[in-house]
Amino acid sequence: MKITALAGGVGAARFLSGFVEAFPEAELTIIVNTGDDFDWLGLRICPDIDTVIYTLAGIADPAAGWGIRGDTFHCLRMLETLGHDAWFRMGDRDLASSLERTSRLRRGERLADITRDLARAHGVKATVLPVTDDPVPTMVHTTEGTLAFQDYFVRRRHEPRVTGITSLNVENARPAPGVLEALQEASGIVICPSNPIISIGPILAVPGIREALRSRTSPAAAVSPIIAGEAVKGPAATMMADLGMEASSLGVARMYSGLVDVFVMDARDGPLAEREPPAGMVFRTAQTLMDTVQSRTRLAKQVVEIMSWRS
Amino acid sequence: MKITALAGGVGAARFLSGFVEAFPEAELTIIVNTGDDFDWLGLRICPDIDTVIYTLAGIADPAAGWGIRGDTFHCLRMLETLGHDAWFRMGDRDLASSLERTSRLRRGERLADITRDLARAHGVKATVLPVTDDPVPTMVHTTEGTLAFQDYFVRRRHEPRVTGITSLNVENARPAPGVLEALQEASGIVICPSNPIISIGPILAVPGIREALRSRTSPAAAVSPIIAGEAVKGPAATMMADLGMEASSLGVARMYSGLVDVFVMDARDGPLAEREPPAGMVFRTAQTLMDTVQSRTRLAKQVVEIMSWRS
Repeated sequence: MKITALAGGVGAARFLSGFVEAFPEAELTIIVNTGDDFDWLGLRICPDIDTVIYTLAGIADPAAGWGIRGDTFHCLRMLETLGHDAWFRMGDRDLASSLERTSRLRRGERLADITRDLARAHGVKATVLPVTDDPVPTMVHTTEGTLAFQDYFVRRRHEPRVTGITSLNVENARPAPGVLEALQEASGIVICPSNPIISIGPILAVPGIREALRSRTSPAAAVSPIIAGEAVKGPAATMMADLGMEASSLGVARMYSGLVDVFVMDARDGPLAEREPPAGMVFRTAQTLMDTVQSRTRLAKQVVEIMSWRS
Repeated sequence: MKITALAGGVGAARFLSGFVEAFPEAELTIIVNTGDDFDWLGLRICPDIDTVIYTLAGIADPAAGWGIRGDTFHCLRMLETLGHDAWFRMGDRDLASSLERTSRLRRGERLADITRDLARAHGVKATVLPVTDDPVPTMVHTTEGTLAFQDYFVRRRHEPRVTGITSLNVENARPAPGVLEALQEASGIVICPSNPIISIGPILAVPGIREALRSRTSPAAAVSPIIAGEAVKGPAATMMADLGMEASSLGVARMYSGLVDVFVMDARDGPLAEREPPAGMVFRTAQTLMDTVQSRTRLAKQVVEIMSWRS
């Protein structure tokens, strides 16, 4: 069963690490958000791509949710000596990905090709694709002004109140080679449990992606990143509320209206699963908290099972 | 006494570290070779500038002669995982200098300004100047073809037989701001014990430097990097022989004809010091081997003393 997943960072990576425990990794294609990408000291940083690769490679830092387990910060400390405000915590090993990526981008290579090679070098058998090769930086409009994503998310610790989100230059962006094909040729599509506004939203904003999901011929499922009105990690619920949406699984489901057949909520959201779903969508419940390898694997199996039932 | 020094890497840095033990560091201006500079993974590496800064900052690796004492190589190891041939050994802490430098160069800043700030950030009170802001990469012509400097020096371990040296684009290069002033306003000029062909040569090749030395009004001295026909470190003697020069202190002295008043050889080269010096130059001997802090300090004092005697 060829699965194509839409993925943000940590939540998605955890879900996918369960998936590859249960199913052949080589059958998996992951379309990753690039809206969080930014330049730091002249290096192109792609947080979600690296998180997905490190997690599937088994070298991710499970506590931090980013970076490489056991990494050191000697370069960063020296940068502080040189006067840098080291709000972005870049590890020494982690730095290698960004050095390699930036060096190849400057030679005119495509992010998709570089990402494929980085994943392979780390022994990842799944196909990891940036949603687009074109920079589409997420801009966060807040009551304290418009902020670049990492400014909002890391430096300001997602504290400012969000009034809107835009993907800069997205109107001119094209899906990276292989992205539309992966959606068209999949035997199942999964929207991972990622922040729908800042992780999945920027993927859906790339011209052609929504259309490919709407015209899908294979079953598609989404897993809610919200449990009992709260995000497992990160500011999803707060952002949804700030933007006037219902900060619940139901609110997320409505954002995916027309894009998936099944929406999987946590068992604790059972009462919400009784409510009327958006047209063409059904609700299912599962244990979605992925605090152990077992729970991730079980969730991945359940999602595939639910999809298979729909097809 | 305001001293201006012409410096390559390790030998120069050792000499200068003795100098700042004996004299006020803030009175010292160091004009550093940039012919070794190269791009590595898109980063601008300036080996001689960094060696001088790290040495004066007291953080240099005394054994290696480059890099930072106790540095780790976690980023480099990860780059090897990503498929890199890690022939250039870049440490994690060392990397910070190149990241900062490259990032500022890309913003259009000048190497001289960046170098000044890097030195200050490391607590170096001497003024450290690149000889020029313009890239003047040293090309090494060998019997195995023309090689970029680091290719020849590090990757090929200075094994190919040298037939010539050129500084690419040097005809269009200009001395960095402050360089000519430092030569004109010095109360003494020292050519450090560096390789005359690949460290001092590229400095002298920058238009205006030779002229400034020839028209100097202050005394100038050079310290030989060759003792008893052998370089203390590196391929100076071999290169000189390959290029048809006398591989001795005398050969070095001839290269500095007209540029210095005093040429300091090691005491072991006493017989050479009895020979006829180039016009306008006198020979002196001293203990030039700098294997201890004491010997470096003593040598610096002697050189200044010899120069003062000439003035």
